[in-house]
Amino acid sequence: MTVRDVEGRRRAVIEGVEPQVDGGRYPAKRCLGDAVVVEADIFTDGHDLLAGVLLYKRADADSWMEEPMAALVNDRWRGQFVVDELGPWVFTVEAWVDAFKTWRRDMEKRIAAGQDASVDYLIGADLIDSAAGRASARDAQQLLDTAAVLRDTSRASEFQTIALDPRVTALMARYPDRSVCTRYERELRITVDPVRARFSAWYEFFPRSTSPVPGRHGTFRDAETWLPYVAQMGFDVLYLPPIHPIGLTFRKGKNNSVKAEAGDVGSPWAIGASAGGHKSIHPDLGTPEEFRSFVGKAREHGIQIALDIAFQAAPDHPYVKEHPQWFRSRPDGTIQYAENPPKKYQDIYPFDFETEDWEAMWRELTSVFLHWIEQGVEIFRVDNPHTKAFPFWEWAIAAVKRRHPQVLFLSEAFTRPKVMYRLGKLGFSQSYTYFPWRHTKQEITDYFTELTQTGVREFFRPNHWPNTPDILTEFLQTSERPGFMLRFLLASLLGANYGIYGPTFEQMVNAPLRHGSEEYLDSEKYQIHHWDLQKPDSLAEFIALVNRIRRENAALQNDHSLRFHNVSNDQLLCFSKQSPDGSNLVLVVINLDPHHTHTGFVELPAAEFGIEDTRAYQMHDLLTGARYIWHGSRNFVEVNPLSVPAQVFRVLRRMRTEQQFEYFL
Amino acid sequence: MTVRDVEGRRRAVIEGVEPQVDGGRYPAKRCLGDAVVVEADIFTDGHDLLAGVLLYKRADADSWMEEPMAALVNDRWRGQFVVDELGPWVFTVEAWVDAFKTWRRDMEKRIAAGQDASVDYLIGADLIDSAAGRASARDAQQLLDTAAVLRDTSRASEFQTIALDPRVTALMARYPDRSVCTRYERELRITVDPVRARFSAWYEFFPRSTSPVPGRHGTFRDAETWLPYVAQMGFDVLYLPPIHPIGLTFRKGKNNSVKAEAGDVGSPWAIGASAGGHKSIHPDLGTPEEFRSFVGKAREHGIQIALDIAFQAAPDHPYVKEHPQWFRSRPDGTIQYAENPPKKYQDIYPFDFETEDWEAMWRELTSVFLHWIEQGVEIFRVDNPHTKAFPFWEWAIAAVKRRHPQVLFLSEAFTRPKVMYRLGKLGFSQSYTYFPWRHTKQEITDYFTELTQTGVREFFRPNHWPNTPDILTEFLQTSERPGFMLRFLLASLLGANYGIYGPTFEQMVNAPLRHGSEEYLDSEKYQIHHWDLQKPDSLAEFIALVNRIRRENAALQNDHSLRFHNVSNDQLLCFSKQSPDGSNLVLVVINLDPHHTHTGFVELPAAEFGIEDTRAYQMHDLLTGARYIWHGSRNFVEVNPLSVPAQVFRVLRRMRTEQQFEYFL
Repeated sequence: MTVRDVEGRRRAVIEGVEPQVDGGRYPAKRCLGDAVVVEADIFTDGHDLLAGVLLYKRADADSWMEEPMAALVNDRWRGQFVVDELGPWVFTVEAWVDAFKTWRRDMEKRIAAGQDASVDYLIGADLIDSAAGRASARDAQQLLDTAAVLRDTSRASEFQTIALDPRVTALMARYPDRSVCTRYERELRITVDPVRARFSAWYEFFPRSTSPVPGRHGTFRDAETWLPYVAQMGFDVLYLPPIHPIGLTFRKGKNNSVKAEAGDVGSPWAIGASAGGHKSIHPDLGTPEEFRSFVGKAREHGIQIALDIAFQAAPDHPYVKEHPQWFRSRPDGTIQYAENPPKKYQDIYPFDFETEDWEAMWRELTSVFLHWIEQGVEIFRVDNPHTKAFPFWEWAIAAVKRRHPQVLFLSEAFTRPKVMYRLGKLGFSQSYTYFPWRHTKQEITDYFTELTQTGVREFFRPNHWPNTPDILTEFLQTSERPGFMLRFLLASLLGANYGIYGPTFEQMVNAPLRHGSEEYLDSEKYQIHHWDLQKPDSLAEFIALVNRIRRENAALQNDHSLRFHNVSNDQLLCFSKQSPDGSNLVLVVINLDPHHTHTGFVELPAAEFGIEDTRAYQMHDLLTGARYIWHGSRNFVEVNPLSVPAQVFRVLRRMRTEQQFEYFL
Repeated sequence: MTVRDVEGRRRAVIEGVEPQVDGGRYPAKRCLGDAVVVEADIFTDGHDLLAGVLLYKRADADSWMEEPMAALVNDRWRGQFVVDELGPWVFTVEAWVDAFKTWRRDMEKRIAAGQDASVDYLIGADLIDSAAGRASARDAQQLLDTAAVLRDTSRASEFQTIALDPRVTALMARYPDRSVCTRYERELRITVDPVRARFSAWYEFFPRSTSPVPGRHGTFRDAETWLPYVAQMGFDVLYLPPIHPIGLTFRKGKNNSVKAEAGDVGSPWAIGASAGGHKSIHPDLGTPEEFRSFVGKAREHGIQIALDIAFQAAPDHPYVKEHPQWFRSRPDGTIQYAENPPKKYQDIYPFDFETEDWEAMWRELTSVFLHWIEQGVEIFRVDNPHTKAFPFWEWAIAAVKRRHPQVLFLSEAFTRPKVMYRLGKLGFSQSYTYFPWRHTKQEITDYFTELTQTGVREFFRPNHWPNTPDILTEFLQTSERPGFMLRFLLASLLGANYGIYGPTFEQMVNAPLRHGSEEYLDSEKYQIHHWDLQKPDSLAEFIALVNRIRRENAALQNDHSLRFHNVSNDQLLCFSKQSPDGSNLVLVVINLDPHHTHTGFVELPAAEFGIEDTRAYQMHDLLTGARYIWHGSRNFVEVNPLSVPAQVFRVLRRMRTEQQFEYFL
């Protein structure tokens, strides 16, 4: 019966520390400038009072910084610290039984009860003397003087005042006895990303479709001419499908036909040809210099370029010759093409993550990101990360972010929920979501509650897309302009991060490859389009308005504050978001039915929103400019999808009344 | 950019392993013979199939045992193992990408699609050859022969049959390639206790009140004469308040008066006098031999004796002189008595868990348990564990259970929820609960759902008491016989572990010390009572009936299967429990109103219960013997509290019909 290596006098207990992902195995995600709110259960045996502090630092810093924690209710404590540098941070919690705080509380009760407490004052004097030993010279003298009074029975009339003196309390709080404090058994990690990881509006286009001349292959120079259009709509990330040379062997033709015709341009995701692989640029798009110029011009418009990185090779990819061991070979000597039996994708060779040479392959694939970072790219959309080994992503993302903590990775994994979440845990900054397939009020409420109000939000940052080159939903195929508008509003207002694939989206292209398919007819994945950006019925101006509302309302720049509210109509969805300081409050009512006007009563948590029951407040519809006077927690709404399928209210809680006029006072 | 120490080819992912308490920091609790059901999220990149196994062993065993895991839905896997020895066990999970399973699945699709798969058969042959290298000599030959056929184009007509042959599949499953398998990063712990930890009926009495002669101090010999009474009621744990010498200094008188009169016996919780301390027996109760005889007699009645261990000292306790450093001294040289200012408890000295001599004190306190274990005691009810330092409990309980894994500890902590839960995590086998103060249907449903259907159930085993010597609830004070019966039914049917303090309870003593107090008038805590166990209106027979029902119905011997069901009346509470194999199903309907008859419609999950919509089934009320024929999921109930305030149905699902008669077939 040996006592193990513990300090048995550590009476404070710390548990349930949040944020914490999988018992501390993965970091939680925050953005530059965020206040990281940390909560913990802190308690001890018996009735003694405690003190607790939050310890935090950059992961590579030598020493901890401290912030005090304060008790909430039910043994829950809270503290916070601000992350003011990108990269990895760590935090933990320390707590101890605070003898002086306990003594002071007890003295208050003894004094109130009129008890003889002469011995207890001596106990206080001992505590104060002991604190003097930990104090600065000046404070020490003050403490010793105070203790001396408490020992001087001739000054007994002063004892009560000293025991309850807030200056003594404050001084003592500066010099607690932490010799047997408890430190939480884990250091928990935080990854700090640029703010754009939390708040971004993405636009995707095919640069080869940007030529002003119909039928001609667009170039980066052509794409530059689209930048003002994208910027005017208010997007801040412009994402390009793969820009590399496209394979010839087994090249797919228009509408994914198995045999390409002469002149067919192929799919950008069939990467690699004699002109190069993942670090090369398709010769028809331009030169590396032209690409860097395009990236620079975009930056002038406040737009970051995001590249699509798809780790797979066309049969003509240089890797296939240079590193055949990175692919699986078949008994007949051929290389294993992608397959989902009985479907064969002979234009694509997947990497073999079980290769013995995995280490060299990991290094090379990671160097692809580093290559494009050198060209000015800081955001990557990663194609199908869930078909590559998970350990690779954890290592590769960490390796890139160690050098370039500002870099963001968007996970394009439309797969099972736990797989999608795993990629978030491993380091992806943002992730595509099931949003395209969530339509009813119940579906949307359930899904967004899971994403924003559970532990998922610590590691999974949703990026919602109403359409992509792979996804033209049945809803968009059939719901016309109001449908496109409402799906756009849902994506951009429910989500602080969202994106659209255009000009397909704003021009409301809705013809599927065939009935029952989510593929576009004449998809840009396999052929070049020519676009008239001035098309009169385009949603471009509406999109610009919504993006302006997002930029002007801090409430819409986070997901964690999302709350759904009751409306007495299942076709009306009502939700709110707030800025972290609560000053900006936006309430959205969306009509989910693109065909009919709906009305209902909205119920708001008036008290929580700072709305007084007896006072009117103003609702300012930011889409139409209309202003409404509401009263209390229950108010009427009516939304006609044929004009605008939503009302996006800024809530103006403090309306002047005559009582605030000067002459009323 | 160095690749850290990983095996990059490990593609299987394991996470979300349950049961797991606080990220594996604490063990989950199970009982001897339990099947430990383990679930985990297991998945990999892409579409490949996986295999997973559960690894488990006694904590001190050298090698792992294995059970296969099977996929449920949504990447969740499940396996189980039986714990057939007391003490600590560990488990973890291993998984790997199963190349042969994947190949076989793909072959099935290729064959169905009529594809040319000649090269794929060769891939299969390679996999089979490789498995032969891992196989037993006999199996290896069979595998080599099979592979040889797949390479022999002259036997191509047999290829399909071989690929899909379940014997080949089964053989291959025995020799998987686990060279790059993933093992979950933690070993999770299980504490295995005797079954009594899960299923027990406790009875508490004061042995000094067992004398047949009014006014005389009862002895263990007297207490022996009560054993048949306790056994007939069906209790299996008999718990005694502290049996040690009682202090004289500041002894409390009757009804907790500050000054004892001559002849007052004092509180058993004021432990220690010249006759000894925590390892001694009060001379008036008997000798150590008589105590051991009492323990032995109880065992003959199927009853285990539980002792109350209260770690605190009366001023006369030998520890105070022998180890003054274990108590806090005040500046005036006196020892600090227990205090909750302005209240003073001068008859009690608390131990100082911040003493520099904590290690010696931990050892001595732990030896108290070991002492009583030597006397035959295997269950301890620990008084106010939440006023002793938490690290002590974790160490002391582990130290005792390392030598005596059969020993159980009941935590008597009526305090804040997180503190109570912490004690469970640290090792207490059972815990008192808030049950005495949960009365309405909503309160009961919420509380028992938290206890039995959340992670709490892994570490916190509730033991529900309708009364204790400290708790005579307002409800019991005012609700008469039906109230006592319904509180008894709730405790003993909602909880597999429960207890009563008697004969106070069964004799329905309900006079409080004063209005608004939960203390008993003339409490046995401070004076000797004389009881007539044959009191005609006693609930003893009713209690015996309920305990018999509990013993005869495995459903009532666990808490994890508890489910509440809708009843169309807020005064009726309906719940069910099942045996682990589902064969025993008990449905309880309790009238929470002790004054009026209530009726309502009960709604059952018919399908889950194996009840066919079109077939009648029988409900057998085990309290009254009445039988009812029910149909479907909605049935009428009526409960009159003045006869019996509940119906306790055994559900008999398989009623014979004429179609089962022999001549009908």
